[in-house]
Amino acid sequence: MEDIAEYIDRHFEEYVQRLAFLCSFETLAAERRGFEEGAERVASMFEAIGGDPRIIPYEGTPYVVTHMPGTGDHTLAFYNHFDTYPIGPLSAWETPPFELTRRDNRLIGRGACDNKGNIVARLSAVEAYKAVRGELPMNILFFQDAEEEIGSPTLGKFINHHTDILQADGWIWEAGGKDASDRLEIFLGAHGILYVDLEVTTAAESIHGSYAGSFPNAIWRLVWALNTIQDEQGRVRIPHFYDAVQPVTADMRDLLASLPVDLEQLRNKLRIADWPENVPENRLSVLEQQYVAPYASIIGMGGGHQAEGVGIILPHRANARLGFFLVPDQDPDDLLTLLRDYLIDQGFGDVKITVEATLPPAGTPPTAGLARCLAETAAGIYDPTPAVFPSMRGISPMGYITKPFGVPVMGTGVGYIDSRIHQPNENIRIEDFVQNIKLMAAFIESAAGVEDWG
Amino acid sequence: MEDIAEYIDRHFEEYVQRLAFLCSFETLAAERRGFEEGAERVASMFEAIGGDPRIIPYEGTPYVVTHMPGTGDHTLAFYNHFDTYPIGPLSAWETPPFELTRRDNRLIGRGACDNKGNIVARLSAVEAYKAVRGELPMNILFFQDAEEEIGSPTLGKFINHHTDILQADGWIWEAGGKDASDRLEIFLGAHGILYVDLEVTTAAESIHGSYAGSFPNAIWRLVWALNTIQDEQGRVRIPHFYDAVQPVTADMRDLLASLPVDLEQLRNKLRIADWPENVPENRLSVLEQQYVAPYASIIGMGGGHQAEGVGIILPHRANARLGFFLVPDQDPDDLLTLLRDYLIDQGFGDVKITVEATLPPAGTPPTAGLARCLAETAAGIYDPTPAVFPSMRGISPMGYITKPFGVPVMGTGVGYIDSRIHQPNENIRIEDFVQNIKLMAAFIESAAGVEDWG
Repeated sequence: MEDIAEYIDRHFEEYVQRLAFLCSFETLAAERRGFEEGAERVASMFEAIGGDPRIIPYEGTPYVVTHMPGTGDHTLAFYNHFDTYPIGPLSAWETPPFELTRRDNRLIGRGACDNKGNIVARLSAVEAYKAVRGELPMNILFFQDAEEEIGSPTLGKFINHHTDILQADGWIWEAGGKDASDRLEIFLGAHGILYVDLEVTTAAESIHGSYAGSFPNAIWRLVWALNTIQDEQGRVRIPHFYDAVQPVTADMRDLLASLPVDLEQLRNKLRIADWPENVPENRLSVLEQQYVAPYASIIGMGGGHQAEGVGIILPHRANARLGFFLVPDQDPDDLLTLLRDYLIDQGFGDVKITVEATLPPAGTPPTAGLARCLAETAAGIYDPTPAVFPSMRGISPMGYITKPFGVPVMGTGVGYIDSRIHQPNENIRIEDFVQNIKLMAAFIESAAGVEDWG
Repeated sequence: MEDIAEYIDRHFEEYVQRLAFLCSFETLAAERRGFEEGAERVASMFEAIGGDPRIIPYEGTPYVVTHMPGTGDHTLAFYNHFDTYPIGPLSAWETPPFELTRRDNRLIGRGACDNKGNIVARLSAVEAYKAVRGELPMNILFFQDAEEEIGSPTLGKFINHHTDILQADGWIWEAGGKDASDRLEIFLGAHGILYVDLEVTTAAESIHGSYAGSFPNAIWRLVWALNTIQDEQGRVRIPHFYDAVQPVTADMRDLLASLPVDLEQLRNKLRIADWPENVPENRLSVLEQQYVAPYASIIGMGGGHQAEGVGIILPHRANARLGFFLVPDQDPDDLLTLLRDYLIDQGFGDVKITVEATLPPAGTPPTAGLARCLAETAAGIYDPTPAVFPSMRGISPMGYITKPFGVPVMGTGVGYIDSRIHQPNENIRIEDFVQNIKLMAAFIESAAGVEDWG
């Protein structure tokens, strides 16, 4: 690998130019702005490294799919997106957001990290590998989404309609980076989600509060309905909710035990001083709860008189945003049915359920060949040793890939703790960028030597 | 009584002039505006009918107390207030709000009904009685509040400090009127209240929603805490909550059975189409629940992500406005202690309780001599027969009077269904005004003949 690493160091300025080119235009999914132009420019970059990119529109969204054949039988796929988060107030930017600026050891611009830096790192690694070795040791598939920042609303359907061209034996997910201790993080999955709005309407309008003795109160009903859903220890009460959950393996427990996560430090930072009495404080499974267990979270709730002062009304409407965070092999659609039936069964058939988002869960066993290969390859390049997490911290459409194909998926990338993703002055560090290109090239080589990726 | 009624008819124009005078100035409690001027003008009216009013300031609030001696031993007291609700947008008024305007059969102006019309009706009844009979058959006490529209924050304390000058054997409360069928309503009490804000704070700020598996969620905790407070059938779960509640008597059940309340009609009007399954629909006690039972109502609740769209946060704070509507002999302060202890006992000591309002309950048995006397006297003057309700529909500081003195209290007044209290174009009908003056005069006469008022 020394030869490829040297090649990468020598051609580093080209990679910065690539990133500058990719950051110079905007594709804004929320406004469906720059869709075609963005797809064409992205495609041109893959053409430049010898690929044969195809722009495939689906319900108005241009997906860019590029296959690059190699000598081996395996296919490694990269999922990335070329849309970016809105820049926010321009005045908050120290440099022009669409003009990649090098300042000290950083490259600043919208998308520098999320997700254009990762696109460039991966395609540059492939280009460097080919340049040095002559050919790729496996087939490579690049798959670019244009709507990740709005939750990839058509991605699941696109994948189902194009399973033929999206066949791969393993996926590298779009992003990742280094933590506060400059330790690289690798993610082996992501919670799925069933995000619903629960609404109770008991009358056409609010009435005087003195009728509360004889007419139903929308907030009480929502409180009682929610209470049936999860108990005070955080256990979901819906029958069969846990049926599909895979048991936590000994390997997973070892992985959890090894995580460089200081919950106590986070708790102090958030000033969670008084831990509620009826929540077990030091449960051994706290990391299990966070990373590999499903849970239901009330994300927001509102109704009735919320202003200052003593108002006396009987609220006629209340709603709550409820997110079920799911793990393999839970299915958000199945859970929706369970939830509906359960609320009816509990006498809360009047609770209106509106689905706001669903995402299938994704999870790769830490023992999967490709997962171990990535961790080991990264350990040879990064110091300190990278940390492998069972799950990403955000939500992600990762499950759309793993569910139909049943292959391992891993996320990591060029970011660091101050990359300011989704904020003004988004940036990456030059050393992280180069290091990640080297990781991707090395991984292509090492993965080619692994027989069983699953 | 014919002679007094004729006197009232003959002097009717004077009563309109009195009301015009009283409506010509503003006392706005919320802004502490017109306090002294208002008290002096009110006092001048009682002086004009032969009273000896005293303006007694208490914590900056001028109370006006007027004793008028009579031949009998009983003392009948009237509670009224001379502050008015803000006028709102002047442009919404068809006539100048502080210039009482006669239009068709109505008198329009701020305070015409609430509560200046009632002050004038009562003092005019007393004046007419004295003019015709020469002297009053009992002692009369007029007691004027200046802060009723902001919840009478000093009234309870004023009463406790001046029990000597507020001794009476029965009270007529400030207001009331006719319903949609032009039937006069008489109220024998009012629910008390303990109005609290319950707040849960689990951290210094909201954090990413993926931590919901391992850190406490403020909304869930509030839901669980609230759920412990009242069950799905509307029964308060706090031990000893019902201990002080007086049993519902057979007389009270008869009274409830006689009420001209069409709950079905109200239900249709509010379009309460789908009655929740687990709420007994046709419980016999529905009126009991509304008028003579205590209950807990969540008046408002909020926390977390309430905006549109899929937000993924772990909410760190949530709050609920909870009103306990109390009946005799429940004590809001005692209940506050019960609530605090109960939440701690249930493991919810982290729920912060802020008291926003307390009012003691008030209730007069329908069999009380004075209550029966008022109902019978009114039945001789009004057609259809007046309806006697156990409780007012709003909240009221009525309990401040009944609790220390233990005497009957009844509310009724000059209003009607379209009096537009607290709204622009507040008004009363001239015929209701005159009729109410006659009722008050007749009641003074008939009550004098009742030995036992309690």
